[in-house]
Amino acid sequence: MGSDASMAELETLSTNHSHGGNQGVYRHVSKATGTPMTFSVFTPPGAGSGAHRPVVYYLSGLTCTHANVTEKGEFRRACAELGLVFVAPDTSPRGDGVPDDPEGAYDFGLGAGFYVDAAQAPFSAHYRMWTYVTEELPRLIASHFPVDPQRQGIMGHSMGGHGALTVALSFPDRFKAVSALAPICSPSQSPWGRKALGGYLGPQSPAWRRHDAVRLIEDGARLPALLVDQGEDDPFLAEQLKPDLLVEACARAQIPLTLRRQPGYDHSYYFISTFMSDHLLWHAERLG
Amino acid sequence: MGSDASMAELETLSTNHSHGGNQGVYRHVSKATGTPMTFSVFTPPGAGSGAHRPVVYYLSGLTCTHANVTEKGEFRRACAELGLVFVAPDTSPRGDGVPDDPEGAYDFGLGAGFYVDAAQAPFSAHYRMWTYVTEELPRLIASHFPVDPQRQGIMGHSMGGHGALTVALSFPDRFKAVSALAPICSPSQSPWGRKALGGYLGPQSPAWRRHDAVRLIEDGARLPALLVDQGEDDPFLAEQLKPDLLVEACARAQIPLTLRRQPGYDHSYYFISTFMSDHLLWHAERLG
Repeated sequence: MGSDASMAELETLSTNHSHGGNQGVYRHVSKATGTPMTFSVFTPPGAGSGAHRPVVYYLSGLTCTHANVTEKGEFRRACAELGLVFVAPDTSPRGDGVPDDPEGAYDFGLGAGFYVDAAQAPFSAHYRMWTYVTEELPRLIASHFPVDPQRQGIMGHSMGGHGALTVALSFPDRFKAVSALAPICSPSQSPWGRKALGGYLGPQSPAWRRHDAVRLIEDGARLPALLVDQGEDDPFLAEQLKPDLLVEACARAQIPLTLRRQPGYDHSYYFISTFMSDHLLWHAERLG
Repeated sequence: MGSDASMAELETLSTNHSHGGNQGVYRHVSKATGTPMTFSVFTPPGAGSGAHRPVVYYLSGLTCTHANVTEKGEFRRACAELGLVFVAPDTSPRGDGVPDDPEGAYDFGLGAGFYVDAAQAPFSAHYRMWTYVTEELPRLIASHFPVDPQRQGIMGHSMGGHGALTVALSFPDRFKAVSALAPICSPSQSPWGRKALGGYLGPQSPAWRRHDAVRLIEDGARLPALLVDQGEDDPFLAEQLKPDLLVEACARAQIPLTLRRQPGYDHSYYFISTFMSDHLLWHAERLG
């Protein structure tokens, strides 16, 4: 942990010893979102002894908070073995004055920030998850936890897979490893994505392309390598996720994509937890 | 799965492919409790192909249902690797007409059946968890899932650790492997236990001794071997759990007890999930 001054930024909500390391949950007031934000951090055994560890950011899917993957993601054993710090932020701002979907739908507003900076009122005041996950949170983590900012990876599930892909495609120098579980591959070609990008960014525009992994690749963004797992029995596969679009875009751009279609698996944490350790190994191999 | 007739006993609430196997949640009407009872079963890869697998029963602690360990226990990876079926029942009867603690306390009544058959009204009508976990549930599992009833193990956490120890001490021929995480070692010497045994069984009597692992050992019950993990930062250690009493009883009875005191660990699923795979390996080695 950092100095007393930086400690004051961060409130510790809980810590639990697990798998030889520490699972913590923390809250801070975000400048990006103008709200309190809660996130979890797992530090592996031996972290804090001076060594700075590689760190993997995990972006969650629709309806989730930090808690879902923290409780059900089964990442700690692999992180402990591989020496990885694991950071799980929330999926939207929350609290007094934060507007939600007008009809309370699960796929927009609270729990559904889509990892963009909103440009439209009333969402633009707080829904600034792009700045939060690409700038503010990594800076906060680097100042409070024993991580090496030169060795950051990013992964995510569903909406969070979209977030991980777009962040890594936009900042390949900052995030040196990337993977996704059942990502929304092209939000501008998905009902969830069109609703979110329209609601947060306004009518279709070049801004949409900057928050669409397939469009970013078409526009010249590149990655050194990419691992994606996709359950073949995922009920959202054909309408919302569309991995074939990512396959085509990566093939044309000569991005080495390892897409694994997993028979029998759905969209749940039973799927996520099954392949979590493979993804963490992928990150560890690339972050050194 | 069994015949159409036996299938009718069992309602499937959910199934999810995970770690190459299947995580299911099921409901049936229990003759023992006179209520619907929900439980979960994980079957490892290849189960159902004719081979009958060893099965481990996991008894949960106060306040839990089948869902807590199913979501947070991190048992599936080890069960898949070791070829174990994993069964997690509820901790009490529930539903219309099932009496709770008069003041709604967490440590008696709903979520706190203590794995006894109640002898006192109004609890004796439904609180028959001893019969449920020792007779009815194993029979139901054997008739619907690809398990070998000759290779049954039992484990549990806290109140469920108490349950696992007393069941295994009472039926060493039926449950050939046993282990516990932070068990209530001697309910008659613990505030939780005295409240539960008093409420379900009545004033202190020989019946209490049959539901107290330390007393059962003093009275001649034996086990071939026992693994217990206990967190040293567990807030319930000194007042409720009292592993020293188990150590003394096992030593006098020459029961080989492996008690591991784990520095830094508390009473939570962060503790349980850390040592789950060690316990499953312990069971697999003994169940063959």
